[in-house]
Amino acid sequence: MALIVQKFGGTSVGTTERIKHVARRIARWKALGHDIVVVPSAMSGETNRLIALAREISASPDPRELDVIASTGEQVTIGLLTMALQEEGLKARSYTGAQVQVLTDSIFTKARILRIDDRKIRKSLAEGCIVVVAGFQGADSDGNITTLGRGGSDTSAVALAAALKADECQIYTDVDGIYTTDPRVVAEARKLDTITFEEMLEMSSLGSKVLQIRSVEFAGKYKVKLRVLSSFQDDEGEGTLITIEDTEKMEEPIISGIAFNRDEAKLTVVGVPDLPGTAYGILGPVAEANIDVDMIIQNAGRDGTADFSFTVNRADFTRATRILESIANQMKARGVIGDNKICKVSVVGVGMRSHPGVASLMFSALASENINIRMISTSEIKISVVVEEKYLELAVRVLHKAFGLEQAD
Amino acid sequence: MALIVQKFGGTSVGTTERIKHVARRIARWKALGHDIVVVPSAMSGETNRLIALAREISASPDPRELDVIASTGEQVTIGLLTMALQEEGLKARSYTGAQVQVLTDSIFTKARILRIDDRKIRKSLAEGCIVVVAGFQGADSDGNITTLGRGGSDTSAVALAAALKADECQIYTDVDGIYTTDPRVVAEARKLDTITFEEMLEMSSLGSKVLQIRSVEFAGKYKVKLRVLSSFQDDEGEGTLITIEDTEKMEEPIISGIAFNRDEAKLTVVGVPDLPGTAYGILGPVAEANIDVDMIIQNAGRDGTADFSFTVNRADFTRATRILESIANQMKARGVIGDNKICKVSVVGVGMRSHPGVASLMFSALASENINIRMISTSEIKISVVVEEKYLELAVRVLHKAFGLEQAD
Repeated sequence: MALIVQKFGGTSVGTTERIKHVARRIARWKALGHDIVVVPSAMSGETNRLIALAREISASPDPRELDVIASTGEQVTIGLLTMALQEEGLKARSYTGAQVQVLTDSIFTKARILRIDDRKIRKSLAEGCIVVVAGFQGADSDGNITTLGRGGSDTSAVALAAALKADECQIYTDVDGIYTTDPRVVAEARKLDTITFEEMLEMSSLGSKVLQIRSVEFAGKYKVKLRVLSSFQDDEGEGTLITIEDTEKMEEPIISGIAFNRDEAKLTVVGVPDLPGTAYGILGPVAEANIDVDMIIQNAGRDGTADFSFTVNRADFTRATRILESIANQMKARGVIGDNKICKVSVVGVGMRSHPGVASLMFSALASENINIRMISTSEIKISVVVEEKYLELAVRVLHKAFGLEQAD
Repeated sequence: MALIVQKFGGTSVGTTERIKHVARRIARWKALGHDIVVVPSAMSGETNRLIALAREISASPDPRELDVIASTGEQVTIGLLTMALQEEGLKARSYTGAQVQVLTDSIFTKARILRIDDRKIRKSLAEGCIVVVAGFQGADSDGNITTLGRGGSDTSAVALAAALKADECQIYTDVDGIYTTDPRVVAEARKLDTITFEEMLEMSSLGSKVLQIRSVEFAGKYKVKLRVLSSFQDDEGEGTLITIEDTEKMEEPIISGIAFNRDEAKLTVVGVPDLPGTAYGILGPVAEANIDVDMIIQNAGRDGTADFSFTVNRADFTRATRILESIANQMKARGVIGDNKICKVSVVGVGMRSHPGVASLMFSALASENINIRMISTSEIKISVVVEEKYLELAVRVLHKAFGLEQAD
């Protein structure tokens, strides 16, 4: 008998029919003798509806009051799911974040969990209940309602699993696991049985948005066994287990997957005087405007000037261009070039640490299809390139094949 | 400077536009230097939407979980209204029932308030905040969320006013006060400046559903000055003040108003053997079936049998008839007669205590229009008659005129 935390996302509980479906799935796990704690999100669309109401009142709503409103989405779901479990003949009981209590700091709309009191949950489990805890929310030490920010239900589930020392934290979503790449792009994409936390972090931040990145960090830190499963298939299968890296991994393939992100735009300040402080002079005002910067490259030229390039989210492209044009003028740079028809493609895998030649295989595969690389950035376990957007699917497919990802382990 | 509790019903906060309108009204009271505690209901339709969701899951939802869900309606409104007050440049802060805390018993879906902790509210008032407290809800001593049942926001407001020793509790609604009768039936119906708690109780229970009856009882018990006002008129005026009866009342008219109720049905068991225990034998099974009985009349006949009549809510008519037919058979009564085309009309007024002749004036007025009286029931401050439904409007109008209610005080 194990203690399992199961998290169900918004689409999994998007209608009362789907909530009943989820209840039947939980009932099957309970029938195996497990203790179950369930963390549902709000019904899909509900959080957006609530935030839209708030925006009708105020263009910049008070964060404390926004959390009072937004937290009701999950509160409705826990009640409905608990009822659905009772309809399956099971004992079940719901708790809001404040009731548990999930203690957070007071940074409304993006609070961080400080501590979870497990007493009420333990008591209800001991009484034979399935315990349904609202995701995404908590309360600060003054009893104010807080939310963890978008995707925070994953974090709630992992934090509960850590606090309860659960045997496993299962994240049910609309995919049946983590794939070597997006199956909509590469038909041969293969579900991974396991992936390391580090790889998962790189995959998440690169646009494979199956899990919220904070929850993966949290799971890694507290050594929570995390599993991604489908809530839409009748047989959820084994999903993908996210593991702490260990020696077994030496047997694993070098590359775990190909991640990509379409929402990129590239900006280059051309001919900046090559002096100390240039990077800060350019990126400081961009950061002040709350624009996130991803890849950064600086090439020193031979004429005492440098070209400074970076990528931003495509939504920030126009704003960033305007800021740079003003900076370029002040810095007496030659000009600003922008390109918002680019994308980023990355190969990710802990195996590349011990296997040289990953970069050259990647570049040769892209060259074989005449795909020009515009930027390159590397970390210990990933290599990212920026290419023209029109090559995205082709690049992902050629890399997937070059690294043999379509083959079973 | 006074401390005022203001309650706004569901239609008053039914849209974000109306919430902004309510915020501007509160701002005007605040500008007069008053301390304000606001108790809003859920946006109109919201509680029904939430309960419908629950019923999609379960035909008889768990009351504890139903309260978890239903309480979110008010939680959304307090957040929105607080934001709207902030948009008016005011300091404002929301509290759920559990946060305050409004301590209740554990009778989910119809909890009773036991105690209100006023510390958080006092602290926020002292900081210059308008305090917005969710109506309709509280929490029991284990921290479970409870609701007070339909219309419970009125009770919340009165209980808060009592706990805070507020100078006045203002109930904003879609009418501008309590009328001598329904103005849709009698064009000359006149708004009352004052009405006593006792009269209000009789008016409420008889179908003048402006205030929830429990809140009136509560206000009477704790001597809370209660005022009904319109939230739809730009100038809310003076509304109707609900007072504790005092000697001034000797000057007041004998009758305060004419109440009526269409949702009535009458049942008669004919020719029951006139023996002790008959009433219980008939009404016991009816009560067991959870059918509320209103007026009850028993006429002993000369042949050792009696006719036993009572009224029920029209929705229970068919069920009650079936129960009675089975009872009549067992009791060897002659039969059961039912009539669901009746209504009840009542004259209400504390003045009738000291003024004999009210009944005879009432009966003669009805007789003058050839309206046949089917049942009569009296209390200390009201006389009710059952008449055919088709005579309802005529009866109300003739009584309104007979008692001179169209004249100003």
